[in-house]
Amino acid sequence: MKEYIYRLDFKVRDYELDMQGVVNNSVYQNYLEHARHEFLLSRGIDFAEYSDKGIYLIVTRALMEYKASLRSGDKFWVGLNLIMESKVRVTFEQDIYRSSDDKLILKGAVTGTCLNERGRPKFPDELLEKLGVK
Amino acid sequence: MKEYIYRLDFKVRDYELDMQGVVNNSVYQNYLEHARHEFLLSRGIDFAEYSDKGIYLIVTRALMEYKASLRSGDKFWVGLNLIMESKVRVTFEQDIYRSSDDKLILKGAVTGTCLNERGRPKFPDELLEKLGVK
Amino acid sequence: MKEYIYRLDFKVRDYELDMQGVVNNSVYQNYLEHARHEFLLSRGIDFAEYSDKGIYLIVTRALMEYKASLRSGDKFWVGLNLIMESKVRVTFEQDIYRSSDDKLILKGAVTGTCLNERGRPKFPDELLEKLGVK
Amino acid sequence: MKEYIYRLDFKVRDYELDMQGVVNNSVYQNYLEHARHEFLLSRGIDFAEYSDKGIYLIVTRALMEYKASLRSGDKFWVGLNLIMESKVRVTFEQDIYRSSDDKLILKGAVTGTCLNERGRPKFPDELLEKLGVK
Repeated sequence: MKEYIYRLDFKVRDYELDMQGVVNNSVYQNYLEHARHEFLLSRGIDFAEYSDKGIYLIVTRALMEYKASLRSGDKFWVGLNLIMESKVRVTFEQDIYRSSDDKLILKGAVTGTCLNERGRPKFPDELLEKLGVK
Repeated sequence: MKEYIYRLDFKVRDYELDMQGVVNNSVYQNYLEHARHEFLLSRGIDFAEYSDKGIYLIVTRALMEYKASLRSGDKFWVGLNLIMESKVRVTFEQDIYRSSDDKLILKGAVTGTCLNERGRPKFPDELLEKLGVK
Repeated sequence: MKEYIYRLDFKVRDYELDMQGVVNNSVYQNYLEHARHEFLLSRGIDFAEYSDKGIYLIVTRALMEYKASLRSGDKFWVGLNLIMESKVRVTFEQDIYRSSDDKLILKGAVTGTCLNERGRPKFPDELLEKLGVK
Repeated sequence: MKEYIYRLDFKVRDYELDMQGVVNNSVYQNYLEHARHEFLLSRGIDFAEYSDKGIYLIVTRALMEYKASLRSGDKFWVGLNLIMESKVRVTFEQDIYRSSDDKLILKGAVTGTCLNERGRPKFPDELLEKLGVK
């Protein structure tokens, strides 16, 4: 099992299932987004507060490999790692596992940047410090 | 504070917010549905299993009164009561409260019935027994 | 067939279906919201612009009666009427019909108000004029 | 401008916006899924019908590059190309453009396969014929 710096537990909700009885592909991105925001909160970074200030954390690329499906009643967890690819680019490795047997459900990589008040890519120093990458 | 036979705790996820920064009106129905299904599970009734058998629990009416908004980071809970209105009609009273101060956010009433394998309104006896209304 | 002052055509998208193969109950509220906003736009009222100005059109109550289900591939339309219930309360009657046979799918009534920049219920005069109720 | 074998027009719906006032990242996957299903329908392939028969078209990988944002009121279109990568793997190139100026919003590549009634990867012959790749 890969190691992660952050983990968040979830349970499938039936309204997330599609007509095949499995979680719809797009819903996994919701899970990953929520896990990222909760991770940021755990480091003292409030996504909504930054948005209010005109500082936007934005996603520029998302790659998802679907390995198996989640179904009604399944519990699962998202594991997260953080890779600073450059001064203005961060990638969140985010993988989803079914809790009952730690089976890999999805391998994800979500890359983003931060736009400052003037719309230019720049991570505020305090944000990098809170992420422990400075 | 009203009394409820079942309660489920949630936290707002940022993807549920709309451009006004509050939980979108339609998302509350997702919360109510998930709370109903978890309540049913707590009584040994698996919504997905019944669907597989061709027995459908369906909603015929939903009334929602929006009292206040939920925002990013808010924790909240759904309280649930069950009223058998007739042999073939059940209403779930479902109210949503913000957890920090138990402020009422939404008053809901969701009425439904059960369609058996032949598409006729009829609650299976075992289902009524599990709900404790028989 | 009831008469409506506005009508909007839609088609079901498969991601809106749930595991029973029908449009999920909460999705109908999305349809109704989109129809309201398009109706407002047709009268020169841009919901998003008002939000930017700090004027909020908010929903205080939604009633939905589910008469029949929509399925994969179904085309449907939303009919809309407007009732000014008081100076600060408007109800949108919004009904959904399957296009192939005009079968009634959902009867809806969505009540709302307008909060001005100071958070008080008040419809701007120009908005009432555009709605033709002044 | 790249050439596509299929194009579908859309308009942003306000419930798809997030608190930053732009279409939420996960919603683009809904757009892409709907465009794929409409493309398949245009070739006489009904996704829902295949699901009913126990034949599943599934996504194994999705890559999305976010180039710019869609906002309230924006019209846009999805262009689609089809690449048979092997006998059991197909990739849909799917790009999103804002209609007003054909600005590129998203570059997507969605790879999938088909599981037959026995859960094995295999495209039915008639499906390949309808897609014009046999």
